[in-house]
Amino acid sequence: MKITSLAHEYWSKIVSPGDRVIDATCGNGMDMLALSKLLDGQGELIGYDIQKEAIQKSEALLKKSLTHDQFQIIAFHHQSHETFLEKSAKLIVYNLGYLPGGDKSLTTQTETTLQSLQSACCVILPGGTISVMCYVGHEEGRREEEAIQEFVQALPSDRWCCSHHRIINRHQAPSLYLIQRLRNIG
Amino acid sequence: MKITSLAHEYWSKIVSPGDRVIDATCGNGMDMLALSKLLDGQGELIGYDIQKEAIQKSEALLKKSLTHDQFQIIAFHHQSHETFLEKSAKLIVYNLGYLPGGDKSLTTQTETTLQSLQSACCVILPGGTISVMCYVGHEEGRREEEAIQEFVQALPSDRWCCSHHRIINRHQAPSLYLIQRLRNIG
Repeated sequence: MKITSLAHEYWSKIVSPGDRVIDATCGNGMDMLALSKLLDGQGELIGYDIQKEAIQKSEALLKKSLTHDQFQIIAFHHQSHETFLEKSAKLIVYNLGYLPGGDKSLTTQTETTLQSLQSACCVILPGGTISVMCYVGHEEGRREEEAIQEFVQALPSDRWCCSHHRIINRHQAPSLYLIQRLRNIG
Repeated sequence: MKITSLAHEYWSKIVSPGDRVIDATCGNGMDMLALSKLLDGQGELIGYDIQKEAIQKSEALLKKSLTHDQFQIIAFHHQSHETFLEKSAKLIVYNLGYLPGGDKSLTTQTETTLQSLQSACCVILPGGTISVMCYVGHEEGRREEEAIQEFVQALPSDRWCCSHHRIINRHQAPSLYLIQRLRNIG
C-alpha cells in the first residue's frame, strides 16, 4: 500500500472530465499532471503556488507532457492559497512541505495552511473532496500535521467524512487526509 | 471513503484464483463471500471461528450464494485462531469484535488476537498481506486496537509495510490495518 498511490486512485474515482479541480500547492507539477489526465481536456484545472519557480517548473512539465487540448484547460495563480478565486471545485489537493529540489526553508506554514483549508471547505462541492498529503520530516511539517489533524477531527460528521491514511512502521512517512463533503440530503 | 470498501478493494488487488486465503474470524461469512468471488473456484479459502454458530451461519450463507465450484474450495476450522494449520497464505483477514447478532460478551480477546497475528506473520507469503479490521465500540475493542497498533508499529520496515486507515471525525468508527510482507529481494 503506497499512500501516494492511494491518493491518486481516490482522485481517479471522483474526478470526471468537466469538473473543476484545484491544486493548492503546484510544487513540481506532478500532481497537476495526474489530474489533467483525469480531466482529459474538459473542465478546469487551476494551480496555486506562492513560488514563481514552482509555477514555472509545473508549466514546463505540463507543456511537454500534455496534448494541446489537455493543456488548454489549465490556469495558474502565482499567489498563496489562503483564499481561492474560484467559487466551487470537485477536488482540491494539497501536497504540503517544501518544493522538491527547491529552497527547503520555504515550506508551507501552519497558519496559512489552516486558513487555506477553511477556504477549501467553503469552495468544495457536495460529493467533492479535499486531499491533503502531509510530510512530517521537518519541524514545521510536524506542527502543521498536528494542526490539520485537530482541524479535520472537528468537522461535523453529518456533513463531512474525514479519513486518515498513513504508514505506521516507518518514521516520517507521508500521511494522507481525505476530507469528503457529503452530498446534501433532501 | 468507506474503510470496509477500502479493505475489499485492496483484497481484490492482491488475490488471484489459485491463492490460499484465510479468514481468521468467519463471523457471519460476509468476508468469506467476498473472498470466494475473488478466488472463483481456484485455490483455497479457509475460515476459522471459535463459535459453532459463526461457522454454521457462514456455511449457510456461502452455500446459498456461491456456485458449486466456488464452494468446493472452502474449508472451515471450528477452533480459535492462535495458530494456523496452513503453512502459507496470500491473504489473512481479521474482522475483530463480536459476532453480529450474536452474544456480545463473546468478543475476540487481545491476547489471543496478538498470538494469532504472530502466527499470521509466520504464515503470510512474501507479497501477501494481513488485513485487520478493528472496532473500538466496546472496552475490549479499545484495548485490542492499542495492542495491535503497538505490535504493528514495531514490525521492521525492511520486511513489512504497515498502513493504518481510519475515519477521524466520527467516534468509534472501525479502523483498518494492512500489514504487507514485502517481497524478498535478491
